[in-house]
Amino acid sequence: MAAHTNMRLPVPRQVDHNKRRAEVVEIATDLIAEGGLDALTVRNVAKAAGYSTAIVSHYFADKRELLFHIYRAAVARAGARTAAILAADPCDLDGCIDALLPLDDERCRDWQIWFAFWGMAVADPDFAAEQRARVTDAQALFKSIFEARRRAGLLPPDTDCEIRARLWVSLIDGLAVQAVFDRADWPPERQRRIIDEAIGQR
Amino acid sequence: MAAHTNMRLPVPRQVDHNKRRAEVVEIATDLIAEGGLDALTVRNVAKAAGYSTAIVSHYFADKRELLFHIYRAAVARAGARTAAILAADPCDLDGCIDALLPLDDERCRDWQIWFAFWGMAVADPDFAAEQRARVTDAQALFKSIFEARRRAGLLPPDTDCEIRARLWVSLIDGLAVQAVFDRADWPPERQRRIIDEAIGQR
Repeated sequence: MAAHTNMRLPVPRQVDHNKRRAEVVEIATDLIAEGGLDALTVRNVAKAAGYSTAIVSHYFADKRELLFHIYRAAVARAGARTAAILAADPCDLDGCIDALLPLDDERCRDWQIWFAFWGMAVADPDFAAEQRARVTDAQALFKSIFEARRRAGLLPPDTDCEIRARLWVSLIDGLAVQAVFDRADWPPERQRRIIDEAIGQR
Repeated sequence: MAAHTNMRLPVPRQVDHNKRRAEVVEIATDLIAEGGLDALTVRNVAKAAGYSTAIVSHYFADKRELLFHIYRAAVARAGARTAAILAADPCDLDGCIDALLPLDDERCRDWQIWFAFWGMAVADPDFAAEQRARVTDAQALFKSIFEARRRAGLLPPDTDCEIRARLWVSLIDGLAVQAVFDRADWPPERQRRIIDEAIGQR
């Protein structure tokens, strides 16, 4: 068997394109978080990744397309965090809030990406449409949690889960806007304190 | 007297620099709101204002300085709106909230400017410091309203006005993030409905 194995013809090395795309997105994410939108160029990404600009351009036509995928990757990370929480307990509102609030470096980085995206979405109809779709997803996620809590008897039967979801998405977005730019002033305890202050809505 | 007036020597036309600076900022604000950060160049601003790039550069060294002043002007507009409300009634929380929420084109434009600024502040320490200072101002403004309401007996004596202020700034910021990108989904009645849903905190 060993001899047979040694006799195999060499297989051409396959490039795993999905993996490489994800790797480029990851590197570009760090570039934005550290250097801002101006640092996001195909050239800078190629340099940081150790690829030619041609390879990076093969995956992403330009800075705008890169930013779009960086944004989606950050949304996917946050989505994976909340999905894991809700798989364990569909009523776990506090767990989901913790999964989204900028409580650590990783979650802060996701928010930095979202802020950069919003800045560009101000006058970019495609980005604005993407942002609308993601906000709708977030509202639906929180609505599903409030509905689960209502079914479980944790909330009164006449609770308006739709309005409550919009309220909580607002609260989390707005808290992040303050906390990410002033982390010293917003340690995790203070972020959770604001959430507790709004406990009447939970 | 008429003869005397006619005999006055012509006075050299004085350029009102403050007025001209404000005019350039106003024009640059429209450029961002309509074309985004990429549209904000000294050249574009000069063209839209009918000035040479040299004149615009005399007032603002570069795009970054322009954006800084555009941001401050939007903050000043919002500050003038809330100051007028509070001068009439220091307890008028709803009036102040209305003055800030993106309920019309003018207020939406101010939010667009703030989003663009946040996008740049992600990796710009000076912009981030400015953003922190303005958030601190907003928290102080709302704290003063809650303190006035507490003194007037509208809130219980043990109300934590500091935490309550942070909660409301969060709520307004986060609501705006959703509403400005999806105005059809966020008519003024729905924005006010979210505020009413949180009425227990008022």
